[in-house]
Amino acid sequence: MNSKGVLRILGFVIGIEGVFFLLPTLVGLIYKEYFGATVYFTTGVICILLALLIVKVILGKDKSKKGFYGKEGFVATALSWIVMSLIGAIPFTVTGDIPNYLNAVFETVSGFTTTGASILSDVEVLLHCNLFFRSFTHWLGGMGVLVFILAIMPMAGGSPLSLMKAESPGPTVSKLVPKAQKTAMILYGLYIALTLLEFLLIVFDPSINVFQAICHTMGTAGTGGFGVLNDSVASFSDYVKIVTTVFMLLFGLNFSFYYLLMMRRAKEAFKIEEIRWYAGVYLTAVALMLIDLAVKGFGFGKNIINVFFSCASLMTTTGYTVTDFGDWPVFTGVIFFTLMFVGGCAGSTGGGFKVARIMLLIKQISRDVRKQIHPNRITTIKTDGKAVSEEVLASTNRLFITYIFILVLSTLVVSLDGFDFTTTFAAVMSTYNNIGVGLGGICVGDSFGMFSASSKVVMIFDMLFGRLEIIPMLLLISPSTWRK
Amino acid sequence: MNSKGVLRILGFVIGIEGVFFLLPTLVGLIYKEYFGATVYFTTGVICILLALLIVKVILGKDKSKKGFYGKEGFVATALSWIVMSLIGAIPFTVTGDIPNYLNAVFETVSGFTTTGASILSDVEVLLHCNLFFRSFTHWLGGMGVLVFILAIMPMAGGSPLSLMKAESPGPTVSKLVPKAQKTAMILYGLYIALTLLEFLLIVFDPSINVFQAICHTMGTAGTGGFGVLNDSVASFSDYVKIVTTVFMLLFGLNFSFYYLLMMRRAKEAFKIEEIRWYAGVYLTAVALMLIDLAVKGFGFGKNIINVFFSCASLMTTTGYTVTDFGDWPVFTGVIFFTLMFVGGCAGSTGGGFKVARIMLLIKQISRDVRKQIHPNRITTIKTDGKAVSEEVLASTNRLFITYIFILVLSTLVVSLDGFDFTTTFAAVMSTYNNIGVGLGGICVGDSFGMFSASSKVVMIFDMLFGRLEIIPMLLLISPSTWRK
Repeated sequence: MNSKGVLRILGFVIGIEGVFFLLPTLVGLIYKEYFGATVYFTTGVICILLALLIVKVILGKDKSKKGFYGKEGFVATALSWIVMSLIGAIPFTVTGDIPNYLNAVFETVSGFTTTGASILSDVEVLLHCNLFFRSFTHWLGGMGVLVFILAIMPMAGGSPLSLMKAESPGPTVSKLVPKAQKTAMILYGLYIALTLLEFLLIVFDPSINVFQAICHTMGTAGTGGFGVLNDSVASFSDYVKIVTTVFMLLFGLNFSFYYLLMMRRAKEAFKIEEIRWYAGVYLTAVALMLIDLAVKGFGFGKNIINVFFSCASLMTTTGYTVTDFGDWPVFTGVIFFTLMFVGGCAGSTGGGFKVARIMLLIKQISRDVRKQIHPNRITTIKTDGKAVSEEVLASTNRLFITYIFILVLSTLVVSLDGFDFTTTFAAVMSTYNNIGVGLGGICVGDSFGMFSASSKVVMIFDMLFGRLEIIPMLLLISPSTWRK
Repeated sequence: MNSKGVLRILGFVIGIEGVFFLLPTLVGLIYKEYFGATVYFTTGVICILLALLIVKVILGKDKSKKGFYGKEGFVATALSWIVMSLIGAIPFTVTGDIPNYLNAVFETVSGFTTTGASILSDVEVLLHCNLFFRSFTHWLGGMGVLVFILAIMPMAGGSPLSLMKAESPGPTVSKLVPKAQKTAMILYGLYIALTLLEFLLIVFDPSINVFQAICHTMGTAGTGGFGVLNDSVASFSDYVKIVTTVFMLLFGLNFSFYYLLMMRRAKEAFKIEEIRWYAGVYLTAVALMLIDLAVKGFGFGKNIINVFFSCASLMTTTGYTVTDFGDWPVFTGVIFFTLMFVGGCAGSTGGGFKVARIMLLIKQISRDVRKQIHPNRITTIKTDGKAVSEEVLASTNRLFITYIFILVLSTLVVSLDGFDFTTTFAAVMSTYNNIGVGLGGICVGDSFGMFSASSKVVMIFDMLFGRLEIIPMLLLISPSTWRK
């Protein structure tokens, strides 16, 4: 294990987080929350000093600058996410807005992993600096902090791609350009541009103020879901809801799509198979739900925006809500669970198992049937006209199996709390797939605060497992990683 | 497609079923249910005549006697199960005990697939001949009707193993001896011996009469679960409950175990890895549930038999009940779902995904982690000291994925009925894994009769998918099987 390399990455992460703490400091100053501003400023300065200590003093003499390969990149990424969450939770507790540190860690992990599950039932009493930072964690976590570091800092030696691999969702990393750093820069460029666009489209609406628009946009961009109002998005205008629906879907798209558009290769962009599946799953879910609601007498007209919004919110794993799902038929609930599991595209900011992987699973099932019938025909599975290697297929399958096992285990532990099965299962699905909305006992207004400490710890791990797609976290907690 | 061969198998199946109809005829005569006896006798005779017509007249001139290979065996098996269920349902409807034919088909499929889910809420009003036949379907379905035909009839040419493969549960068929026919004979011999043993152990108990003992034993042997009393097993003595617990566990064991014992190779028998996992999962579930019940104040003493019984009943997918699970904590429910999914051993009469497959899945997850850490080490997965081929591993993974997809799809369709999520999910899990017990809305006393016709059809398919382990049914309904 290149432990010095891991420590250097941790130093970078702590330093960057310190710098980012200056943003909520500014928000605190604007809203005259001087105590809050001081807390963020002090924590920020300490982080920067700590980072300098690690990088300059402790590692200063280490000239080897070995790079990262495979497992080291994964372990470094998993550790980085844990450390930045532990640090990010400090101001919440010190400012007194979330006095219990475990709750603050839950909230911060929920933020960075773009889950948006909250232990708070009243968010409107929070300081503006805390509200801002909460939403900012979504924005940073969405595209990834290591991708950010990669974009602004040259990495000598090794394979910086292994860091990106650990942090970017999907079965394979879409290397837009051969160099990892360039890819990271393009990704963040597109991300910032799309974020700004959404902000500009909603900030002039009278139902939302500038501060709300900033937070709401960051929550959409990261497909996070923390709201700044207790009713999430319900009190915003229909216009804001529609724009949000469109942008949730845009942020759930594979970013290769935008890159191809940018390169004026629109034809290729629209031919990406995953995007067609993504649209297909979304529109099917919307259609099924609208029909079901109409048949069951819930009315068609008034629900149409809600259904488009909710399906987008759950499939992209954002988790904004416009209505209390608890009143809707149980069929809706099952559609929701399905969408939660499918998730966004690979290479997007969305969570879940990813459309690209579902596509590979379904193609394999269909190949299996064909193979039974024509055993001697050689069949390769193709995506976008290219053959997918058997190794990628097999590892997708194993990831799915591991996914289900962790799901079952987590549900078991959380069920010890004694909430009914729907509530328990929904809470686990929601954190594990980084959505943040509950069903059953956790409706609009209620929160994850009602769970026991042990359940919260399980869900903290689930959120990290979900965001980093299992393997990095599995390596981190596996004893054989640490054996000499 | 060797369609003549498929037709011949169907002929055999119809003929055998006709012969077996003579058993309920006898029961009807004993209990002076002359109308019932006449119905069974007439249906039996018609079946036998139909079988003779198919085998002697239609196929009589066909001297080729081509055997079965791969997919044909699978398709023949799937068709056989559907045909024998459609025929088996006739007497239920004609005698008037289950006037609705779809309900009768549900009940018969539930019987043959050893599910034990019933559309009836009062079974005590049924004719004895119907009650007997209902339990007899469990017994025959448990070890398999094609295995039975294989045991009593020589099959010329082809690979009769492909029929066994389609009907015997598990990732690989345990060929006890090189010849398929001999293997089938040994399996049925062991099965009959164990069934007789259980019957003899309980028949003298005063809480059960001879008729009940016969039906109860057949239900245990097939790991079916149809009861002859409305309260399932609750009113039998503790002694009967304990004997039943032991025999449910015995019938959920891999039958290779008994063969090795018979061959005086006890050392090998007890070293079978799957059996250790089976015992491990069972005892862990019992321990967790006892602790949870004690902590939550449900009392320890009076629940101890119930917990041992219920875990055995669910894990072996029998589905006998001794108490209303609805009152127990939700943790129990999640344990139950987990046990339902794990199921019995490969090569047993139990359903579920099978312990052997779960073992292969878990070993692969652990190998994956090790491979990330030591990428260059070559690692094979072993069971009972022998390497498992990558093809078996890959097909186990794909089966698991297909299993989950069908589970999600079925839950979606059944959720249209509008029962709460727990009820819906439990009904699907219960039929798909061939258990028969519901949770939530379907407790002791309630029944699957409350579901809509479309949900019943979905669950009929789920039961068949579960019992035949997906592939045969998938081939049957796949259009490309039938394309020229």
